[in-house]
Amino acid sequence: MSQPLRLGIAGLGTVGVGVVKIVRQRANLLAARTGRAIEIVAVSARSRDKDRGVALSGYAWEDDPVALARRPDVDVFVELMGGAEGPAKDATEAAIAAGKDVVTANKAMLALHGQELAEAAEEAGRVIRFEAAVAGGIPVVKALTEGMAGNEVTRVMGVMNGTCNYILTRMEDAGLPYDEIFAEAEALGYLEADPNLDVGGIDAGHKLALLAAIAYGTRVDFPSVELEGIQKLSIADIRSAADLGYRIKLLGVAQMTGRGLEQRMSPCLVPADSPLGQLQGGTNMVVLEGDAVGQIVLRGAGAGEGPTASAVMSDIVEIGRGSRITTFGQPARGLERARPARASAPAPYYLRMLLTDKPGAMAKVATVLGEAGISINRMRQMRHESNNAPVVFVTHKTSRDSLDTALQGFDATGVVQGDPVAIRIEAV
Amino acid sequence: MSQPLRLGIAGLGTVGVGVVKIVRQRANLLAARTGRAIEIVAVSARSRDKDRGVALSGYAWEDDPVALARRPDVDVFVELMGGAEGPAKDATEAAIAAGKDVVTANKAMLALHGQELAEAAEEAGRVIRFEAAVAGGIPVVKALTEGMAGNEVTRVMGVMNGTCNYILTRMEDAGLPYDEIFAEAEALGYLEADPNLDVGGIDAGHKLALLAAIAYGTRVDFPSVELEGIQKLSIADIRSAADLGYRIKLLGVAQMTGRGLEQRMSPCLVPADSPLGQLQGGTNMVVLEGDAVGQIVLRGAGAGEGPTASAVMSDIVEIGRGSRITTFGQPARGLERARPARASAPAPYYLRMLLTDKPGAMAKVATVLGEAGISINRMRQMRHESNNAPVVFVTHKTSRDSLDTALQGFDATGVVQGDPVAIRIEAV
Repeated sequence: MSQPLRLGIAGLGTVGVGVVKIVRQRANLLAARTGRAIEIVAVSARSRDKDRGVALSGYAWEDDPVALARRPDVDVFVELMGGAEGPAKDATEAAIAAGKDVVTANKAMLALHGQELAEAAEEAGRVIRFEAAVAGGIPVVKALTEGMAGNEVTRVMGVMNGTCNYILTRMEDAGLPYDEIFAEAEALGYLEADPNLDVGGIDAGHKLALLAAIAYGTRVDFPSVELEGIQKLSIADIRSAADLGYRIKLLGVAQMTGRGLEQRMSPCLVPADSPLGQLQGGTNMVVLEGDAVGQIVLRGAGAGEGPTASAVMSDIVEIGRGSRITTFGQPARGLERARPARASAPAPYYLRMLLTDKPGAMAKVATVLGEAGISINRMRQMRHESNNAPVVFVTHKTSRDSLDTALQGFDATGVVQGDPVAIRIEAV
Repeated sequence: MSQPLRLGIAGLGTVGVGVVKIVRQRANLLAARTGRAIEIVAVSARSRDKDRGVALSGYAWEDDPVALARRPDVDVFVELMGGAEGPAKDATEAAIAAGKDVVTANKAMLALHGQELAEAAEEAGRVIRFEAAVAGGIPVVKALTEGMAGNEVTRVMGVMNGTCNYILTRMEDAGLPYDEIFAEAEALGYLEADPNLDVGGIDAGHKLALLAAIAYGTRVDFPSVELEGIQKLSIADIRSAADLGYRIKLLGVAQMTGRGLEQRMSPCLVPADSPLGQLQGGTNMVVLEGDAVGQIVLRGAGAGEGPTASAVMSDIVEIGRGSRITTFGQPARGLERARPARASAPAPYYLRMLLTDKPGAMAKVATVLGEAGISINRMRQMRHESNNAPVVFVTHKTSRDSLDTALQGFDATGVVQGDPVAIRIEAV
């Protein structure tokens, strides 16, 4: 058996503690699977004295993660601090410069700086692995980088923020508005310190950008992800969607089109009886589509100590076994910048609006849609008591441009109250 | 860029042709992902003249797969002939002896001879990869060997024979008996030349034995898989199960228990609204459970040219990238023989029987169950016209021993007509 693989772990929050526990409790199993022992030699975190429920006295302590990353007795730097810049990035760069491999769960850092970090690692002959950064315990980075390697990837989709899916599920189940369920999720500690990372779709957008880079062999490009959060979703939309056989999900979609690379993280309607539609609560799901394999669906816990630590450990074992796969599955220097698609691929849309309840109102709206080249698939008028009639349309496939034309045209009809809601229906 | 990775492909059926197509059509993509070109240098099949819809003239032809396996210009021997023994095994052994890596889709060969082949490969410093042997396009070998490497695996489950799942789905949808749907599947060409490989659960049992070996670090032990096919399932059971909120699946389950390693491939009831219960038609699903990660569900096409070729290609790319992972994720010589569990873990059971329609009949049956220590969770008497009343019980958790005691005891009651049906209910 070879020399032990020696870890330096920076960040001892939930995930870091989970990794320490697995390394301690599963030493024999890990050694058998890796072909060598896995050992922690040093750790680093903000507070040395905090009781984390796990013994750390056997490991060297470093106050400074950069110092940890440079220790000569560390083979793999395990970055579990988080944050796109600052100590996490400094320490990762220091680790690469000092000839260490890196395992990280840091989606923000890689979504924003993955290209430069990958290039640096590959020049130094080191690897960066990040299974835990995307969809927690689901081995999706592996499935895409390795399992799909023989495919031209045609689409990647995912529900990758458990908190958003929890909020949407609870809104539907409890029939309560967004604000109330948001407050509930906050009280339960489900939200990031900056909740916009969750409900604004940023966190899930980071993950999507990473998957897109692997899928299409392009430079990770988070700024081009079209982001729309769940904050504006109303219980009325969730109910109307359900009436029509759909569920609303914060869905990430990446696909290469003739118009460039499309990356969207936004609320979408999906059929309620599809795997994505059936996904309730905090669970994550990723759908990978390739020209040879067809559709692969992966489902599992997207967060939490055990699942995320499991993903970190899979990367550590992989490095211990001698795998030297590049960060994005191809040499980073060869990755091209994708042209971002300026408009999303045509799709059917869900349209909900409040019409003045008088004869001819519907005809006026239908005329606007028709003039924009949008044909109506289904229409439903909801029960109402006031003078305004809520109406829901499901359109046939249309471009976003045509839809925007129609949305602007509704104003002039004088019969549409307030702003209509338009939500894309994704064929899954 | 390194030297090309040179393939010798033995077997040009559906999967072999699929691999040839991908290598030809995706040369640039494969080279970018692998870091080196992937080239086919030689092929072998039974008939040289058959039109396979793909140009083979650029490759050397070998009538004898063993000769192909020994060619000095072949780096990776791709075995796609099938068959547990004979040419497939001879050629695989020859390839290893000649210092080649092996990629195979051959579940039967590995289920029966995987241990000796893995030992031979590891002694020769070569690898055997077999992603395509289990659940077609789903990257489950990778997910289990690599993604779950940090977990103590607690259970592996799978619906891994698309033909059986197709038959069961069709029986339910069409309300037709097994024999008719079997004939339909046969006419559609869905069945193996020996249909018992499919409907007897053997093919799926091979796959389960391979997953169990990886999951528990034990020698692959197909002969210990408890096998039961779908041939005896009646439309009455499928309907009664549906009435109770279940679906019947040919389900593989592997778990390590205090009584040894349990490996079962048998019809089971699963909740109709669970991911396994919702799996309709020919699709495959594998459920992996680990102490850290919880439950991971993987779903995709289990057979067919594209999906299976995709899995073969993932192994080829992996080898091209330099991965040297062992066949079962641990050194083969270190794998221990698992003690087979003589009895399956306790579970609730579904029991259907025909009772003579007279007072006291139900009491007699209930007494037998009670005396065997089995308590009844639910009971349903089905509508009937004859003098015999069909009755369905769902029991609470019980051992198979107790169940067998009860099944024997029913005879003496004089009120049970024919053989009762007992089907395990698996908690998924």
